[in-house]
Amino acid sequence: MNTRFYNAKILVLDAENHFSIAEDELHVTGDTITYIGPGKKADPDAAETPVFDREIDARGNLLIPGFKNAHTHTPMTFLRSYADDLPLHEWLERQVFPNEAKLAGDDVYWLNILGIMEYLTSGITSNFDMYIQQKNSIAATVDTGFRTVLTSGLNNFVDSPEILEEMYNYVNELSDRTSYLLGFHAEYTTGGPLLEAVAKLAEKYHSPVWTHNAETKSEVEGCKERWGLTPTQLMERLGMFQYGGGGYHCIWMEDRDFEIFRDRKLTAVTNPSSNLKLASGICPLKRFYDNGINLAIGTDGPASNNCLDMFREMFLTTGLSKVREMDAAGIPADAILYMATAGGAHAMQLTDCDRLAAGKKADLVMIDLHQPNMQPENNLIKNLVYSGSKQNVKLTMVNGQILYENGEFHIGFDPEEIYARSNAIIRRISGSHADN
Amino acid sequence: MNTRFYNAKILVLDAENHFSIAEDELHVTGDTITYIGPGKKADPDAAETPVFDREIDARGNLLIPGFKNAHTHTPMTFLRSYADDLPLHEWLERQVFPNEAKLAGDDVYWLNILGIMEYLTSGITSNFDMYIQQKNSIAATVDTGFRTVLTSGLNNFVDSPEILEEMYNYVNELSDRTSYLLGFHAEYTTGGPLLEAVAKLAEKYHSPVWTHNAETKSEVEGCKERWGLTPTQLMERLGMFQYGGGGYHCIWMEDRDFEIFRDRKLTAVTNPSSNLKLASGICPLKRFYDNGINLAIGTDGPASNNCLDMFREMFLTTGLSKVREMDAAGIPADAILYMATAGGAHAMQLTDCDRLAAGKKADLVMIDLHQPNMQPENNLIKNLVYSGSKQNVKLTMVNGQILYENGEFHIGFDPEEIYARSNAIIRRISGSHADN
Repeated sequence: MNTRFYNAKILVLDAENHFSIAEDELHVTGDTITYIGPGKKADPDAAETPVFDREIDARGNLLIPGFKNAHTHTPMTFLRSYADDLPLHEWLERQVFPNEAKLAGDDVYWLNILGIMEYLTSGITSNFDMYIQQKNSIAATVDTGFRTVLTSGLNNFVDSPEILEEMYNYVNELSDRTSYLLGFHAEYTTGGPLLEAVAKLAEKYHSPVWTHNAETKSEVEGCKERWGLTPTQLMERLGMFQYGGGGYHCIWMEDRDFEIFRDRKLTAVTNPSSNLKLASGICPLKRFYDNGINLAIGTDGPASNNCLDMFREMFLTTGLSKVREMDAAGIPADAILYMATAGGAHAMQLTDCDRLAAGKKADLVMIDLHQPNMQPENNLIKNLVYSGSKQNVKLTMVNGQILYENGEFHIGFDPEEIYARSNAIIRRISGSHADN
Repeated sequence: MNTRFYNAKILVLDAENHFSIAEDELHVTGDTITYIGPGKKADPDAAETPVFDREIDARGNLLIPGFKNAHTHTPMTFLRSYADDLPLHEWLERQVFPNEAKLAGDDVYWLNILGIMEYLTSGITSNFDMYIQQKNSIAATVDTGFRTVLTSGLNNFVDSPEILEEMYNYVNELSDRTSYLLGFHAEYTTGGPLLEAVAKLAEKYHSPVWTHNAETKSEVEGCKERWGLTPTQLMERLGMFQYGGGGYHCIWMEDRDFEIFRDRKLTAVTNPSSNLKLASGICPLKRFYDNGINLAIGTDGPASNNCLDMFREMFLTTGLSKVREMDAAGIPADAILYMATAGGAHAMQLTDCDRLAAGKKADLVMIDLHQPNMQPENNLIKNLVYSGSKQNVKLTMVNGQILYENGEFHIGFDPEEIYARSNAIIRRISGSHADN
């Protein structure tokens, strides 16, 4: 599939990581961006015009790199609006773990497709996913055409180092749209021998290591009681960060933790909606930023957010940082957009999907500027970060394939079938009709 | 225009203000809801079937009362993504006031239409607006078919008690979709003689009084230096609350302020996005709620938010309250939805638009449930509050007229003309092209 976009504005990122707007064509050959610049017809010296399967008049709309959802648990769609309004640890123990234990057969496959559909509506082209039953979940990525980086939710109750190693090799070989980075659920659910096993695998495979880190105050307090160290310091002590990695949430950080993140070139993934909804706290984003630490943004899972929407997360990322520091200047809007795109790609080792440029994978989104929330066009980047919405997503392309366009999904499944299956799964698990 | 919706889920509110879902028809005759209940064809004893101009198959989608945007400055669309990232007082003095002074001719009319369009995309059916040049702005409401309650931005530099009284009478007589409640900009911009003049008008017209109240810490500190009282206490002392009213923002409240709000049956309007973006603080929502004080939600203006989106505001209203109290249980989702609909209607004295019921005005929204973010249907109210999006707004009806449907506006203007005019206005005012 070769696609030509013309009459487009194109968000490009230069070598110094500054965004600017280029015009006016972007060409896709197979899975790769092959050209960005003026219309070829205007250039008499250009080589012969390539043959396109589709030529899309962008009508002045904006092409941006796809958003990277750098932390989520996608198949938790079944618990959306079902398990709510509890603090993290009670929520996990009373609602999440008991209901997840009832997932059976190919439930996770269908629930993951529902989440992927929602990502496409929000311009998200890849997810960094931690969940159980990963052979089922990754099959949904392969079948829909989506792109996924998996990590492990290994803990004392789920999976094992052997399963982790098997999945690491399986997923990294499965498809050019799937990959795997090592990880575990969290220190508070994972005993010392398991943590040491993960560290050994990191050494063996030269892999980064990821986990939930400093999401709640009590998590950090508990870790210090058990180990005399924060989660970051413990992972550093165990040798988990030799090849990088990072943490999800990263709210209750101590001075030494910031130093480790900076020195090991780790990434902090912020999950602002989830942190509000579970009342976990507000990430000290500005301190990471001022230390030059890479930042990325994740929705977290649909049971703790409950929306899989990068526009809401971008606004919250900037807004919460401003109010935490009581400084309206805060972090510039283009740095927030960088986190949601290139910052996430860096964390997920998707460096060939991090920006719109010739030679990069064609993971991109067309943003409808012909909408009132994008007008006037004073500053397109601020419009995206401060007033953008799912409603502005006209088209989402992953690996050169258009998976979503004008409200229609092109993923090989009837949306109504996916909705019916997700309702049937939660009805079976809850043993009754939903409560509304 | 008579409209029949069938195959619908209908969000109704009982006498005790509890939401539930009714099925399956809603009829509109002229500007009024005339029937909610089972399909009339199923009832052999029903009177003859009314004649409808349109019969709409809702396909199981959800009809909800239109959102009430209980505090905004709609024509500030021209400054969206132009004046950003400054604290409130610097932002007002360096960016807002100097640029507003350049608004001329019918600028405010066109800028208001742009904001009304965005409201329609978010299911907002009325706004409580404070802005300058109100004859121009209210003409946009009249011409588009929208519904607006105005209040005054009177201060030491803009308008006068005479203009306020003139506008009060003019707008209250203008249309059944326009009304006026007394108000002024804020204590820190408005001197004692003006405040006393507003109090006299409240006495004369038996009107509530509204203002920006306790938006920033420095505002309250300054008021106490000038008057020895908080803004709420000062307004009470001046007799402004004899006929009710309330405040916008209401963040930096003291014990006595809560008592006055409770005893005078005032409304606190929260503006969470604006409070984040200007780093003003987080509203003590739970304390208002526990005191039984009426609450409503506003977007604030498009230069301080920058999005006019009640879905984002609802999520932030609940999320910020949870994290402020460090309690994930917090305020229930249906109470948040009440604030965004009936709570706002109460504040705006739009009691005939507060809910879906026979005899009420037909201000309503059809929510598309055939979208991944609304599935599964575990709890439709939580889906709306925690994961709803502009993308779910299929249809917005004001006063019985469909003004927005399937992405198309029916307001008598070409959207491209409105966009072009808004860009031209800010280019003229800034003396240059926009910066992107």
